[in-house]
Amino acid sequence: MNGMEKTFAQEMLELLGEKKYSALKQELGAKNGADIAAAFGELRPDQIPLLFRLLPKELAAETFVEMEPEDREVLIHGFSDAELGEVINELFVDDAVDLVEEMPANVVKRILAQAEPAMRREINELLRYPENSAGSIMTTEYVSLRPDMSVDEAIAHIRRTAIDRETIYTCYVTKSRKLLGVITIKDMLLYGKDGVTIGDIMDENVISVETLTDQEQVAQMLSKYDFLALPVVDAENRMVGIVTFDDAMDVLEDEATEDIEKMAGMLPSDKTYLRSSSVDLFKHRIPWLLFLMISATFTGWIITSFENALAAQVVLTAFIPMLMGTGGNSGSQTSVTVTRALSLDELSFRDLPAVIWKEIRAAALCGVVLAAACFVKIMLVDRLAFGNADITPMVAFVVCLTMALTVVIAKLIGCSLPMLAKKLGLDPAVMAGPIISTTVDAVSLLVYFGAAKALLRLG
Amino acid sequence: MNGMEKTFAQEMLELLGEKKYSALKQELGAKNGADIAAAFGELRPDQIPLLFRLLPKELAAETFVEMEPEDREVLIHGFSDAELGEVINELFVDDAVDLVEEMPANVVKRILAQAEPAMRREINELLRYPENSAGSIMTTEYVSLRPDMSVDEAIAHIRRTAIDRETIYTCYVTKSRKLLGVITIKDMLLYGKDGVTIGDIMDENVISVETLTDQEQVAQMLSKYDFLALPVVDAENRMVGIVTFDDAMDVLEDEATEDIEKMAGMLPSDKTYLRSSSVDLFKHRIPWLLFLMISATFTGWIITSFENALAAQVVLTAFIPMLMGTGGNSGSQTSVTVTRALSLDELSFRDLPAVIWKEIRAAALCGVVLAAACFVKIMLVDRLAFGNADITPMVAFVVCLTMALTVVIAKLIGCSLPMLAKKLGLDPAVMAGPIISTTVDAVSLLVYFGAAKALLRLG
Repeated sequence: MNGMEKTFAQEMLELLGEKKYSALKQELGAKNGADIAAAFGELRPDQIPLLFRLLPKELAAETFVEMEPEDREVLIHGFSDAELGEVINELFVDDAVDLVEEMPANVVKRILAQAEPAMRREINELLRYPENSAGSIMTTEYVSLRPDMSVDEAIAHIRRTAIDRETIYTCYVTKSRKLLGVITIKDMLLYGKDGVTIGDIMDENVISVETLTDQEQVAQMLSKYDFLALPVVDAENRMVGIVTFDDAMDVLEDEATEDIEKMAGMLPSDKTYLRSSSVDLFKHRIPWLLFLMISATFTGWIITSFENALAAQVVLTAFIPMLMGTGGNSGSQTSVTVTRALSLDELSFRDLPAVIWKEIRAAALCGVVLAAACFVKIMLVDRLAFGNADITPMVAFVVCLTMALTVVIAKLIGCSLPMLAKKLGLDPAVMAGPIISTTVDAVSLLVYFGAAKALLRLG
Repeated sequence: MNGMEKTFAQEMLELLGEKKYSALKQELGAKNGADIAAAFGELRPDQIPLLFRLLPKELAAETFVEMEPEDREVLIHGFSDAELGEVINELFVDDAVDLVEEMPANVVKRILAQAEPAMRREINELLRYPENSAGSIMTTEYVSLRPDMSVDEAIAHIRRTAIDRETIYTCYVTKSRKLLGVITIKDMLLYGKDGVTIGDIMDENVISVETLTDQEQVAQMLSKYDFLALPVVDAENRMVGIVTFDDAMDVLEDEATEDIEKMAGMLPSDKTYLRSSSVDLFKHRIPWLLFLMISATFTGWIITSFENALAAQVVLTAFIPMLMGTGGNSGSQTSVTVTRALSLDELSFRDLPAVIWKEIRAAALCGVVLAAACFVKIMLVDRLAFGNADITPMVAFVVCLTMALTVVIAKLIGCSLPMLAKKLGLDPAVMAGPIISTTVDAVSLLVYFGAAKALLRLG
């Protein structure tokens, strides 16, 4: 893909250089908005406006929606008021709202001034919904039908309004704005005949969400039911908008990326990697690095407080990284699995006992196998092959006992912390990553030195 | 959501117990396949068949597709041949193929015996495509139109065939099976009038994929272009099928889950968490735990070979966890970010120099800030507040120098390893997780002891 776009961007520049505008116009017209936007991303800001003006109206809006926010801002600055108005009024309301949300105040003012009154009113209405709610990602451009319409009347109505609707394939049947049913064009084509009204063939079992429903839940529902769109209603079951599958797809991808970033100890970022400056990267990464470094002070203290034991038997030190590493890996395996299952709505808090029981058994299996393998490795490799006589069978036993116990504890913390976090309204993904590894580090050291003191009779 | 389904499963059981079949039938008929399947998941296997037989034909197929593989197998074993045939022949071909792929050989034999000849032929054809290819997830049930049809003829054709087509909203224009163009029902409604043929208003700039294109790339394209479906063609541009947005959504979710599992050091699993037994969990987790434990032997050796230095200055031991932890966190931040960007097609190998340059600058910023904070912390907390005189400014300097260098090295390894892996056809996600943390552990220890020997004049 990338190879193709590169060529396309270069091709545009060449045609532009040779002033072959009509050829350029034809080239652009044959492309998709997403591809043109990607190619624009490779050009210098001053090269974009001229090319943009060559796009036919609908394709211009489509391209504009797909462009990166920075590129859009540059472009808007180059627009005359009339040009700006033309693009804005061609957008779907939800895209216009996204635009308004990401632009600085002075640009927003210009955008709203150029929007048609109806558009401006709808933008302002949608802006009132909280971030990440169904209301904030929905569009108001859906097809609504009356139950007493005949199928032919309905299709004529769709034909008249289709151009401005984000989807026409799923239509919503309303009366005094109350949502009564849903009907697809497929059903109209299949079951429509003389004398049949929309009310006769609509599906009255409508699955809908409320304006304040979390966008991730909306996206999961669209994915679960394989719907093209999901109706959004207010508290009185009055229809206010729809969320379409393409927006749900974007939400699912963004939320997965956000979870991954949090689990790896980063603040989530809206920008793509190549668009992020190194200062952006720094800002998103340094908080957790600092926090984790400071919290590692505790593990340092634990080691310091067992300094005498370690000085008496330095060989114990060599196993610290392995024990902490295995504990950390075990904990993050579990926490990451549980967090993902929570995100996908496969798990809820009432499953906690089942999860703990499952994890205890899995952890016991892992612990026993790891401890046995570890014992064999220590005795054969570290003691025999390398001839380290300090590593007595008792030392090996202490290490392996610690390992087995740490794995079980790590997996217990790993499964319960994210579930508790979710229950308390905190973010499981943040728990799943950095916090668990720090906790497990401290636990594994305490177990290790405790076992060493008890079994090796150290100070 | 879960709360609701629980009630629904219980409600079904109650009605079943009271033999209120017609009420039960009505209840079921008002539900969606996905919800019924979820409720079935909470019942005992022997309770499902009777309920399933109460479903109307189309809803039965819809529910069947949404059920977990284990439940489906139980259900099939309870079916008579006639019942099995009825369900199979109601499925879309791609769902039938999924079913055949996950069932044991004897069940597959029964399924194919009960499928209608045309269905059986198509299943066998689709089974030939390699796993994870566009061919393996496509369906052959699309609407194809001829370019010389009038819009009315096209709509009449759609009306006749709609019932068996997975989507009718995007239609494909073909001649001798070659793909010529694409047209939506929306365009037909908007631009269809007397004398206009499909060929006149179709879009000739068709974006298509080949049968062997990777399913993840297909899903990314559907998401990028916001299409309902993407046509799949063979090497001679003959249309063979379509991939629809709902399958793309599932692919995107599965691939994200798989990446997350790999990054956390697990073998990816097809089963949901609650469906996995503790032995399943054990099997997917133990390989990497064993590998990482064994590979931690190297860090153990590094520590052992510096035993004398550590015995002379035991205080150095206390900083090992912090240094290894910070190195590991820095490395995984970068590797996880880069791997996700590779998955989302935001990065390609040719970006490597830009990525390295960006990461060096971000790492330098992180390294300097961490080292400075660490120095202040060590001097004020560890030395002053805790009165540990062993911690000289020179020791603090060695620790902080190691930290800064480790962060830079970790971020360099973290960005280049996944990109090299992708270039070499290996899996970046596997690189992003466990392998990087092991490498970084060893590197941070070598830097630490190297700096300690040089600057603290230790043996």
